[in-house]
Amino acid sequence: MIEQHIASAFDRDLESIQAMLMKMGGLVETAILDGAKSLGDRDVELAEQVRAGDAAIDALEEQVNEEATRVIALRAPTASDLRTVMTVIKISANLERCGDYAKNLAKRTTVLVDATPVEGGDVSIQRMAREVQLMLKDALDAYIQRDAELAQQVILRDEDVDKLYNAVFRQLLTYMMEDPSNITTCMHLHFIAKNMERMGDHVTSIAEQVVYLVTGHMPDDNRPKQETTNFTAEEA
Amino acid sequence: MIEQHIASAFDRDLESIQAMLMKMGGLVETAILDGAKSLGDRDVELAEQVRAGDAAIDALEEQVNEEATRVIALRAPTASDLRTVMTVIKISANLERCGDYAKNLAKRTTVLVDATPVEGGDVSIQRMAREVQLMLKDALDAYIQRDAELAQQVILRDEDVDKLYNAVFRQLLTYMMEDPSNITTCMHLHFIAKNMERMGDHVTSIAEQVVYLVTGHMPDDNRPKQETTNFTAEEA
Repeated sequence: MIEQHIASAFDRDLESIQAMLMKMGGLVETAILDGAKSLGDRDVELAEQVRAGDAAIDALEEQVNEEATRVIALRAPTASDLRTVMTVIKISANLERCGDYAKNLAKRTTVLVDATPVEGGDVSIQRMAREVQLMLKDALDAYIQRDAELAQQVILRDEDVDKLYNAVFRQLLTYMMEDPSNITTCMHLHFIAKNMERMGDHVTSIAEQVVYLVTGHMPDDNRPKQETTNFTAEEA
Repeated sequence: MIEQHIASAFDRDLESIQAMLMKMGGLVETAILDGAKSLGDRDVELAEQVRAGDAAIDALEEQVNEEATRVIALRAPTASDLRTVMTVIKISANLERCGDYAKNLAKRTTVLVDATPVEGGDVSIQRMAREVQLMLKDALDAYIQRDAELAQQVILRDEDVDKLYNAVFRQLLTYMMEDPSNITTCMHLHFIAKNMERMGDHVTSIAEQVVYLVTGHMPDDNRPKQETTNFTAEEA
């Protein structure tokens, strides 16, 4: 009877922490899309909103950490439950980093408003943002449903994001070579693209955590390394 | 008697985890300096060594995580001891990221060997590397000695790294404007400088964890935000 009681108390606590995590995920998804939209429309007001919104994401991460630590201390969870709590902590750290990148993107929007526009660069970045947001949505779904297969799919889709980044890199290099007055704008767009690619890596890391949680071992590292792909492009 | 026994078992476990953490820190310090040296000397062999060495850093992070989780499950530490273990986990994650950046730097060395050399850029990067390595050393010393004051100093010194980054950014922009054939090399050097700055942020995060562990609250966020400083430079 007592054990039953303790177990369900842990479950209730875990559910409440997971709810925070999902709220965090939702905010990050919105930040990615709004950040990219603010860039596309050169919408400073929306960019400002994304920047301000990051505080809520940071606060949620802090809350997840506090609660997770409290639950571990209070409930002394079993090895398997403990692993779940540790996974939640790691996922929230990944989400927080994604939030930072979205904020950074929004900051660059406010700078790019006054810079020479470079046509074409924006479109690819919108595509990257959309792809990363969908990956994130699926990674979080995979966590909630403990769906290792869906998580594996997310991991594979990171290749597409890497390919998009490589295409943007080559494109921006061309624009800079053509006209030095494009350089400053292209440097910003390049950073945005690189940050999108980094977000993809963090989402992949979330998906890997899910695979580990469900199957007990990390996924095979058979996807092409994102850095290797970059260097192929940059060597070209 | 039993409590005494449990307490010292935890202490022994913690010491063994901390030893792994310090070993990790030492490897990361070496990777930063060797990575920068490989760039300065265009030494592909040393760069290859740094790249290969990152696996050991990753393995240690995994080990720290495994051991920390095991200790929590086995020893059910008090709230204060639990916080120490959580701090160790966070610090090891920061170290692992620094290791990744050093590896990335080394990868760029192997690319830059065949690229147009850009004088001047290298020198500033060596300075950044040296500064970040010293900060890291002090942050880890501050952890071991539970020295919040030393940790605070590390946090303040991150400003210097940010200033160095801004100087490098302006310098590289000038080189690119002067001669488009410098663009590819400068893009690589810019990434290296940015990654150094990011390492500085991770080291700062380690120092903040130390302040939190010792004082019970996070340090005042009164240092200029690194991103704001960047944007000042980039707007100029």
